[in-house]
Amino acid sequence: MIIVMRSDATEEKLQHVLERVQELGFKPHLSRGEKKTIIGVVGNGKVVDSSVFQAIPGVESVMRILQPFKLSSREFKEVSTEIKIGHVTVGGKQVVVMAGPCAVETREQMLASAEAVSSAGAKILRGGAFKPRTSPYSFQGLGEPGLVILREVGDQFGMPVVTEVVSPQDVKLVASYADVLQVGARNMQNFSLLEEVGKTRKPVLLKRGLMATVEELLMSAEYILSNGNPNVMLCERGIRSFEKYTRNTLDISAVPIIKTLSHLPVIVDPSHAVGKRDLVAPVSKGSVATGADGLIIEVHPDPERALSDGAQSMFPADFADLMDEMKHIAEAVKRTI
Amino acid sequence: MIIVMRSDATEEKLQHVLERVQELGFKPHLSRGEKKTIIGVVGNGKVVDSSVFQAIPGVESVMRILQPFKLSSREFKEVSTEIKIGHVTVGGKQVVVMAGPCAVETREQMLASAEAVSSAGAKILRGGAFKPRTSPYSFQGLGEPGLVILREVGDQFGMPVVTEVVSPQDVKLVASYADVLQVGARNMQNFSLLEEVGKTRKPVLLKRGLMATVEELLMSAEYILSNGNPNVMLCERGIRSFEKYTRNTLDISAVPIIKTLSHLPVIVDPSHAVGKRDLVAPVSKGSVATGADGLIIEVHPDPERALSDGAQSMFPADFADLMDEMKHIAEAVKRTI
Amino acid sequence: MIIVMRSDATEEKLQHVLERVQELGFKPHLSRGEKKTIIGVVGNGKVVDSSVFQAIPGVESVMRILQPFKLSSREFKEVSTEIKIGHVTVGGKQVVVMAGPCAVETREQMLASAEAVSSAGAKILRGGAFKPRTSPYSFQGLGEPGLVILREVGDQFGMPVVTEVVSPQDVKLVASYADVLQVGARNMQNFSLLEEVGKTRKPVLLKRGLMATVEELLMSAEYILSNGNPNVMLCERGIRSFEKYTRNTLDISAVPIIKTLSHLPVIVDPSHAVGKRDLVAPVSKGSVATGADGLIIEVHPDPERALSDGAQSMFPADFADLMDEMKHIAEAVKRTI
Amino acid sequence: MIIVMRSDATEEKLQHVLERVQELGFKPHLSRGEKKTIIGVVGNGKVVDSSVFQAIPGVESVMRILQPFKLSSREFKEVSTEIKIGHVTVGGKQVVVMAGPCAVETREQMLASAEAVSSAGAKILRGGAFKPRTSPYSFQGLGEPGLVILREVGDQFGMPVVTEVVSPQDVKLVASYADVLQVGARNMQNFSLLEEVGKTRKPVLLKRGLMATVEELLMSAEYILSNGNPNVMLCERGIRSFEKYTRNTLDISAVPIIKTLSHLPVIVDPSHAVGKRDLVAPVSKGSVATGADGLIIEVHPDPERALSDGAQSMFPADFADLMDEMKHIAEAVKRTI
Repeated sequence: MIIVMRSDATEEKLQHVLERVQELGFKPHLSRGEKKTIIGVVGNGKVVDSSVFQAIPGVESVMRILQPFKLSSREFKEVSTEIKIGHVTVGGKQVVVMAGPCAVETREQMLASAEAVSSAGAKILRGGAFKPRTSPYSFQGLGEPGLVILREVGDQFGMPVVTEVVSPQDVKLVASYADVLQVGARNMQNFSLLEEVGKTRKPVLLKRGLMATVEELLMSAEYILSNGNPNVMLCERGIRSFEKYTRNTLDISAVPIIKTLSHLPVIVDPSHAVGKRDLVAPVSKGSVATGADGLIIEVHPDPERALSDGAQSMFPADFADLMDEMKHIAEAVKRTI
Repeated sequence: MIIVMRSDATEEKLQHVLERVQELGFKPHLSRGEKKTIIGVVGNGKVVDSSVFQAIPGVESVMRILQPFKLSSREFKEVSTEIKIGHVTVGGKQVVVMAGPCAVETREQMLASAEAVSSAGAKILRGGAFKPRTSPYSFQGLGEPGLVILREVGDQFGMPVVTEVVSPQDVKLVASYADVLQVGARNMQNFSLLEEVGKTRKPVLLKRGLMATVEELLMSAEYILSNGNPNVMLCERGIRSFEKYTRNTLDISAVPIIKTLSHLPVIVDPSHAVGKRDLVAPVSKGSVATGADGLIIEVHPDPERALSDGAQSMFPADFADLMDEMKHIAEAVKRTI
Repeated sequence: MIIVMRSDATEEKLQHVLERVQELGFKPHLSRGEKKTIIGVVGNGKVVDSSVFQAIPGVESVMRILQPFKLSSREFKEVSTEIKIGHVTVGGKQVVVMAGPCAVETREQMLASAEAVSSAGAKILRGGAFKPRTSPYSFQGLGEPGLVILREVGDQFGMPVVTEVVSPQDVKLVASYADVLQVGARNMQNFSLLEEVGKTRKPVLLKRGLMATVEELLMSAEYILSNGNPNVMLCERGIRSFEKYTRNTLDISAVPIIKTLSHLPVIVDPSHAVGKRDLVAPVSKGSVATGADGLIIEVHPDPERALSDGAQSMFPADFADLMDEMKHIAEAVKRTI
Repeated sequence: MIIVMRSDATEEKLQHVLERVQELGFKPHLSRGEKKTIIGVVGNGKVVDSSVFQAIPGVESVMRILQPFKLSSREFKEVSTEIKIGHVTVGGKQVVVMAGPCAVETREQMLASAEAVSSAGAKILRGGAFKPRTSPYSFQGLGEPGLVILREVGDQFGMPVVTEVVSPQDVKLVASYADVLQVGARNMQNFSLLEEVGKTRKPVLLKRGLMATVEELLMSAEYILSNGNPNVMLCERGIRSFEKYTRNTLDISAVPIIKTLSHLPVIVDPSHAVGKRDLVAPVSKGSVATGADGLIIEVHPDPERALSDGAQSMFPADFADLMDEMKHIAEAVKRTI
């Protein structure tokens, strides 16, 4: 860490900072510049919040040298992590497509969805049973009966299933049905939930919060990893910006950033990012070319009757076309789909 | 609701939209303009997501006429809500100041804090026992022993206490110690938690998420109100923007916006908004003049040894000066403090 | 337009709004709902700011039905615009790559740059002579001598050249040297400059402002088009968000949004969007797959000695590799490069 | 400056960085940590972009120690700057209110405006003659005839006048009529314009861009100051965020931030920040309490017939009430109005 002293800090204040650095078990290296005095803080292996130093009077700012995440970092583990989900591997050569409706509504709807996405080449079936909704008056999902349907339909089509868990109490229940536990964007910093999914060994699809930096996403992954679960996939699903034409703003750069900083696989969710059916295909293709390890796409057999997210759900025929186009792009970047 | 059709939508598509509107139990009013065809959707009392119409092919956009929140709206309840917390009333003539350290650390620290903030005129004591932290390696709070200390010190000084609850399972425990349950910014859309605090009758301090609109904040309040708990205070604590000098960006306009849209009291948290001790006083004064019903301010007897948020914690003496200045401002806007 | 009245607006206020609508030459259609009264405003061909109605007492909100841009809209001109720049066509089947250094520094540097990007397959040479810099103490470009070098080197390699113009007074000068006039992000709403480039017939590369919505970008294009210059290319170059790992946040969705709303070609500038050399290649590939009509990429023969933007400038060898990879992606989406 | 090397940087790359630092005229201080190697760069008085070092292979990041602005900084000039505008002083004990309509429309409208705001206590008259508008089809201002009216009405009421200049060519013209030259938010980084107003000695009201950090605002002030004009007032007028209820988001913290970093006076423009008449009064009061040196408020004798910004223009009677309330708040913070 580097501590920058205020220009008007007295010698007494400077000495006090030096003492505090030592008190906290670090070694200070003083460097008096013509205009600014700075103190290098040499670590002791312990993790310390830079904010501890920020709190000392006379300190102007504190700059962090080391990344605050460890287990999720590429420096900690150089080789990219591959995650096995049944017969599917995420993080390898294949770009894995997860698809299905936003919410499990009925067995018929799930059968039609699975039939459509499976025949088009999707490998994992999605469908929500517990739905976090902005309004208490919106459809909140079927709950456990939804999980039962999802599991049965997944088995029937030989597809692993991914579904969201929204509360620490439900983790065991959801884990007993699902192959992948999804932690939604609004829960990215629900630390109780992260700890609970960290205690399972189920693969986790951790979505980036609407307001979260990539660094914060990795810190949330750290909660899961440090609880013992190494199977974390990170999901870029759009961040909030001032642009209102799309539901959110897909931060496509997050894909190579995560691949640089971390060994964990990156999935892109184009559906929630753009929020409009017609825009899903172009950004899906872009995500494959940019290097995503997978995609999670909303497809519904009858989008206009979907109980949620109909406007961003693709028609099965359009999804099949997209899969076809993405195969060519995957080849162009030396991957399969 | 107003449905705007795409310019290239066929007559067939238009007819289909009209049918769907009726199928969903609404009455459509068609209006063919020279350039755009629009459909007014007349309600049936049921709440319907505008997104349901957005999903129909041929629809360009859907505009909502009615606000999506009800119980929290000024239209539903015209008179401003006053909330009793022990002998203190929030939402009336008095601007209520809640103060204390970020986290409960020791009994001595809480006694010193309570002594300082109480003598300066703060009415409610704050202190966190369950701390949601970005990093799993940071201090996570004392848990229940922290609640015990907070309660005892609050009682000793005759101050009601406010503390955060981070998990649905902990609501009963925290409610057994606290006078006010705080739901933090990162949990504003943790709907399981909102439902659980909604089932109590404890006053709730609901903080606005870093990336949440005021409308979304009111929708989250709706979760609590619709579960039966009418005692909700809304808290503006800074939103995330591109400006990096402050920790967050205090959205001061949220105060009059909330007073316009809702009958619920508004509290400002200047400490988390600015993140720097020296900036807390000016924006606190501004918040009182703008019409806040209360403030929640971090004060620590020894900020540089605080286990969290030291950089934004005020020194007791500076807090006392601020309280003094705020008294004059409160008078200028015909309130007390 | 749709005017929504406040719930507490009196009958008198409503009548007044109806009168004002007529006074302004429009026909009002009153619709009294159970909860809200709304007024449809039927146009007269004249363009009217929705804000005119917003100003009338009793009005809660005004919703626009028609898009505010005309000449740039796909509704106005259905066929995609192709722009001829020398022997190069932008907006057709070919994805046109423009490349070169941020700034023209010396003849040698430009020769080396042109040699590198031309042999790798770039079609247009970039290089700034007038540089808008955040700091008055930074290198501001060579001015006219830079234009001379750029022109000569472009001619030598048979490449059209693109360069920025920052002031209305300089438009004629720059247009006398350049094949494409670039209007930078910071000048997207410099309306005097837009009018001036609108009076020429030179192709214009109009960059989206850091804070501009796609709609505002199209409104700025409207300034150029309505002054008589139909040759406008729109450029997505990253918007400002809270994420700090990249210089800006590339809004990849802007590509299909613009292709939907407008007939004008879309160029992506990955270099300014990400600001880091290593991230340029992945998002460039993603941009081609998403449907960009062109790319503008910073390449420098010796990036660490670049007078500006060195950190985001590619090495010639890496650029050549990228061009090669992009060729395969272009083929996968049935285009050439 | 501090250079942080990548963990995987070779010794050769490190040596190369050290050489480059010396080549550029700086002295490097190498510090090899257990995990990270960093290089302190000791200055030579010359200003160097941190990005120069960022461009060198092997460098992970570069941290700036010194602020990039000089003439505008509090470190350069400790005493707060007071600016004389006729008989009015901005930056002293008095909070100076500038008020009037968005645009000069007619002599009658200006007379009515000046009468209203002057009698309520405003000291400076505002009114735009050159209007930067998002749409080329909106009212663009009266141009020079508007300046003539503004000047005459100002003189008649003994009020200095402030008006916007949008193009470098117009600076002399506008300066011949106005007492204060306003540079609008969209032109905050129109460096040609900044240089031109910097060459005059007229007081300048420099508005913060919608997406500009405070640091960038100060860098723009630096353009004016370094061209010889010391009379710069900085204006916070709302930044762009995701919140859509207000036109922009008033960043009230910018007031104390600017007072900390700079000696220049700070003005708040609540009208553009909130964009809604009813919200202007509360945030104006808050701005005074927070420490603003002045306010610029839109007031129109007949807002619903205003040619621009009617929705955010106050009625004269409401403005008079606000002035009265602000007087009490100014007293509470030991200032006058």
